[in-house]
Amino acid sequence: MSAASHSVIDPVELTRDLIRIPSVTPADEGAMDVLERALTGLGFTCRRMVFEGPTGVGHDARIENLYARCGTASPNLCFAGHTDVVPTGDLAAWTAAPFEGETRDGVLYGRGAVDMKGGIAAWVAAVSRVLAEGEVEGSLSFLITGDEEGPALHGTKRVVEALAAEGEVIDACVVGEPSSAHHLGDMIKVGRRGSLNTWITVHGKQGHVAYPDRAANPAPVVARLLARLDAHALDDGYPEFPPSNLEITTIDVGNPATNIIPAEAKARLNIRFNPTHTGDGLIDWLNREAGALQAETGLRIELEHMCSGEAFLTEPGVFVSAVQDAVEATLGRRPEASTTGGTSDARFIRALCPVLELGLVGQTMHQIDERVPEAELRALADAYQAVIVTVFERLKA
Amino acid sequence: MSAASHSVIDPVELTRDLIRIPSVTPADEGAMDVLERALTGLGFTCRRMVFEGPTGVGHDARIENLYARCGTASPNLCFAGHTDVVPTGDLAAWTAAPFEGETRDGVLYGRGAVDMKGGIAAWVAAVSRVLAEGEVEGSLSFLITGDEEGPALHGTKRVVEALAAEGEVIDACVVGEPSSAHHLGDMIKVGRRGSLNTWITVHGKQGHVAYPDRAANPAPVVARLLARLDAHALDDGYPEFPPSNLEITTIDVGNPATNIIPAEAKARLNIRFNPTHTGDGLIDWLNREAGALQAETGLRIELEHMCSGEAFLTEPGVFVSAVQDAVEATLGRRPEASTTGGTSDARFIRALCPVLELGLVGQTMHQIDERVPEAELRALADAYQAVIVTVFERLKA
Repeated sequence: MSAASHSVIDPVELTRDLIRIPSVTPADEGAMDVLERALTGLGFTCRRMVFEGPTGVGHDARIENLYARCGTASPNLCFAGHTDVVPTGDLAAWTAAPFEGETRDGVLYGRGAVDMKGGIAAWVAAVSRVLAEGEVEGSLSFLITGDEEGPALHGTKRVVEALAAEGEVIDACVVGEPSSAHHLGDMIKVGRRGSLNTWITVHGKQGHVAYPDRAANPAPVVARLLARLDAHALDDGYPEFPPSNLEITTIDVGNPATNIIPAEAKARLNIRFNPTHTGDGLIDWLNREAGALQAETGLRIELEHMCSGEAFLTEPGVFVSAVQDAVEATLGRRPEASTTGGTSDARFIRALCPVLELGLVGQTMHQIDERVPEAELRALADAYQAVIVTVFERLKA
Repeated sequence: MSAASHSVIDPVELTRDLIRIPSVTPADEGAMDVLERALTGLGFTCRRMVFEGPTGVGHDARIENLYARCGTASPNLCFAGHTDVVPTGDLAAWTAAPFEGETRDGVLYGRGAVDMKGGIAAWVAAVSRVLAEGEVEGSLSFLITGDEEGPALHGTKRVVEALAAEGEVIDACVVGEPSSAHHLGDMIKVGRRGSLNTWITVHGKQGHVAYPDRAANPAPVVARLLARLDAHALDDGYPEFPPSNLEITTIDVGNPATNIIPAEAKARLNIRFNPTHTGDGLIDWLNREAGALQAETGLRIELEHMCSGEAFLTEPGVFVSAVQDAVEATLGRRPEASTTGGTSDARFIRALCPVLELGLVGQTMHQIDERVPEAELRALADAYQAVIVTVFERLKA
């Protein structure tokens, strides 16, 4: 990989340029253009990948995505992120305009400052320095979506599917989500639990409580099913994960009459699962349990499932320790490899390569007055630069 | 007991007089006056017992009740009933005005025709004939309320309490509810199941499904409690009753969010129970089960109970067979002694004496175009007359 340009990009200025574009999900508003111009200037080949389709929330979406690569050699180290941001919330509550990029006392304010326009800008800056300092034997790439904060149906998920179909090889990926808990670099995320929602409907037959023989009450059937599912230990946990956990999130019959046996009982549950399980495996288990109770009771039990993310774990190894070493060398603290927290697009990228998340401190993400100290943006760019260099060294060793 | 007057009352005319008074519960509108005049004319001593108080449905009520007695000797055979009626429903759907008492093709139309102004009039007519025909050694009494179709808090319940406090002795009671199923006299009701409603609230602690350790989910606790209660066989039934039965009538959490552990789960159940149980015994059992699960789970479980009627059974014996024999002798069919159906004021009267229900065919009760063939009113008066005579004979034997 050779540098087409030796210009060096400032992470604070690029973050500010991105903040000034109100790319509230799923709107792009030109955010991807800003990024594409910067990357093209650094010698990247940029492919805009637009995906359209239903969002599951009542309207279609047209989503801008970008896959950019510099170099053709192996290994290919990818950076993944998103230019869309969550809504501002109550504008009057902000002390700085959310799309101005104002700096006050060395702190840059704006929606996306930490989640994650700042992360993108820091990696672009790091790449610009690496390229300015000489050749790298391998490739650098960016996988950037405009659909992470929304339904995430036409973003990273579809880009990954397209790249996999083409045979594009990515050897390792850093996702720039704000992974740090309290201090920059104190935590990287090397896995996430999976999440499955299941909607349960038990169909009975309405009737009068005085004549139970003429009715079929679905309420005790849903109670029995839920009691059985809840009593089942899914696993004992994993070295990096707590035991998988099932929560009944609602049960609803909605019958106002004290003398009526209801016709239908509904419930919903959520399972957060570690890599002991897959979504499909859990769905099979739930379907078997419901089927057995349906056979016992004669009442039809209907399940609908939605797995919003498989569990994944990037095992300790060369990639993870290279990132930890690079962060420790630049920031003076060794990041804990954690699997806590919510979901991210890493759940899609894991299908392609080992993936981890390293980024800013997430404390103001999604909040009023989202902000980042400019010094942290520069420090993250330093850390990212060291990550790029160290990962290439180790992957090629 | 001697007759103060030998006038004979016509059951059809008295039914019509009562129908013409729109005594839609809890309004009296003078219905009790009509009855009092008729009974005073027959030599009864009438006591109006007015009870007032909250109705449990947001306003107070002032309820007219009547206890009338003719004679002081024992035994005292009582007739119980109510002058209040249910609302008309859609007036435009009636083919006869509900408060006119119109007769068409020998059928008398009007609200209360069968439930149960017709029954009251038939018993008054029967009494007038018995008194006209000579002396009866014993007493006849009437326990009439204006609060049977409503909350029934200030009607028969309070009259019974007052009579019991005074030491008034009633030896047997016929309730004039429309007990007949298809043909006049085919069924008497000698018992009813009791009914208990219980409201359950499990108090938990709301939280995020990803962090179950910081929350306490009430939904699985309510599911377990309900599954346990539902699995418990209350009894094997009784010769005259089916097994007591518990129905879960609703379960409600109402949590719209898939990622939230709810704070509270509610449910309600209804138990229809035979005389194996009492309301208090069942309440004790439910409280014990909830207490045990509360101790197991640490989540507070709150129960509220409302027993709207104890189970009762008037065992086969002199009274029941006297009534069956009298009906068979006059109407040509021997009534089945049944314990099916909903509740009636007999549930209160059982505290005083053996009680059964004998009355018109209930098929049009509470419906549009409630009506009774005039011939059935006369036939019921004949049957009631035979009942009075036969019961006195047997009770004194």
